[in-house]
Amino acid sequence: MALTLYWGSGSSYSWRVLLALEHKHLAYESQLLHFDKQEHQSPPMLKMNPRGRLPVMKDGDYVVFESVAILYYLDVKYSAVPIFGSSPEEAGVIMRVICEFQNYAEPSLSKIVSAMFEEDEAHTHSLEELTDAMHVVGREARTIEGRLSKELWIVGANYSAADMVIFPWIQLLRRALNKSAAAELGRRFLPMETNYPALARWISRIESLPGYARTYPPHWHSPI
Amino acid sequence: MALTLYWGSGSSYSWRVLLALEHKHLAYESQLLHFDKQEHQSPPMLKMNPRGRLPVMKDGDYVVFESVAILYYLDVKYSAVPIFGSSPEEAGVIMRVICEFQNYAEPSLSKIVSAMFEEDEAHTHSLEELTDAMHVVGREARTIEGRLSKELWIVGANYSAADMVIFPWIQLLRRALNKSAAAELGRRFLPMETNYPALARWISRIESLPGYARTYPPHWHSPI
Repeated sequence: MALTLYWGSGSSYSWRVLLALEHKHLAYESQLLHFDKQEHQSPPMLKMNPRGRLPVMKDGDYVVFESVAILYYLDVKYSAVPIFGSSPEEAGVIMRVICEFQNYAEPSLSKIVSAMFEEDEAHTHSLEELTDAMHVVGREARTIEGRLSKELWIVGANYSAADMVIFPWIQLLRRALNKSAAAELGRRFLPMETNYPALARWISRIESLPGYARTYPPHWHSPI
Repeated sequence: MALTLYWGSGSSYSWRVLLALEHKHLAYESQLLHFDKQEHQSPPMLKMNPRGRLPVMKDGDYVVFESVAILYYLDVKYSAVPIFGSSPEEAGVIMRVICEFQNYAEPSLSKIVSAMFEEDEAHTHSLEELTDAMHVVGREARTIEGRLSKELWIVGANYSAADMVIFPWIQLLRRALNKSAAAELGRRFLPMETNYPALARWISRIESLPGYARTYPPHWHSPI
């Protein structure tokens, strides 16, 4: 098998690539590494990605990492099912929405999610900082809600790299806000069915895609 | 003229797009907006980009913003002179290097540059924070130095979007470190000819490209 994906359970960046591989119907060898055993920092992994981060994709002898670069590589190489649009105009909007998400939403999402899941991080951000981060996330979520109230997918009529980049973070956020410590923080976000109905429908839409179960973080099957 | 670029002098993001337009030999209308007059926040600009940020590119009726998305759009639409590589493997490396730069270098670069140029920012970062940021920048610059000591351009044999994304930030950094307040901070970075010789040659190489003068921030012709 030519394609091998090295990934970690619960890494939003890894999840993006799994969604793309399933959507493109590409056969791949799945190498699930365990962060707690430092498997992503082993010598063979560091040889492929000196930063020791996941996901890493191998295609024959070729290695690529950084989730958006992997999505892009897969799209140029295996173009039968496009995920970066089918016209220059669509390509531009998809990449623009991805850049906006990375620049304006991801830093705040990352702050909230790591405060809830990583004990070391729990005390590095004050409640005030997390509340500010939640405001930013709420504002960006409303923009996406606006897009999804008009179209089935984040950019237009087709499931694209923009959906794949954003979806795992929204799932991580929901999981973080469901923790009891986050009750106050998540008050205006959850339940999504009430506060962000179009986003909630979009999540269900992705959850019912063929192959979705194979992308779901294995350790999420156990209770938080 | 179909293409119009709205940009700001000294914005690294704007500079990227100017470099791409010149390299691709595309005719464009140049609309230089003045940040100090808030021209980027005018109603017609906010209609194109609700975030009120530059650059913004208009192509006929189509609008795209976020610098990397503009580069990508231009490359898909006007593909005669490619800037995202000419094979899937090259495309993957170019996008990977861009993602790495954005994720691991840009936040620190941005901290240093804004501390030196924006008076409001001068006291929000402690000297210790700026020194840490400079360490990160130094480490990332050594990686790029390594690439450039083997090849003429950041990814392989051709000038690409990776060069266009990184170059303006290096110029901004040099300008920031040349300020007297940055003397101590820049001690191990400047002069680049001694500390980063391959990077210094790469800067000269870009500075001598045809059309470079049209991309140079107009207000940089006056003293700092």
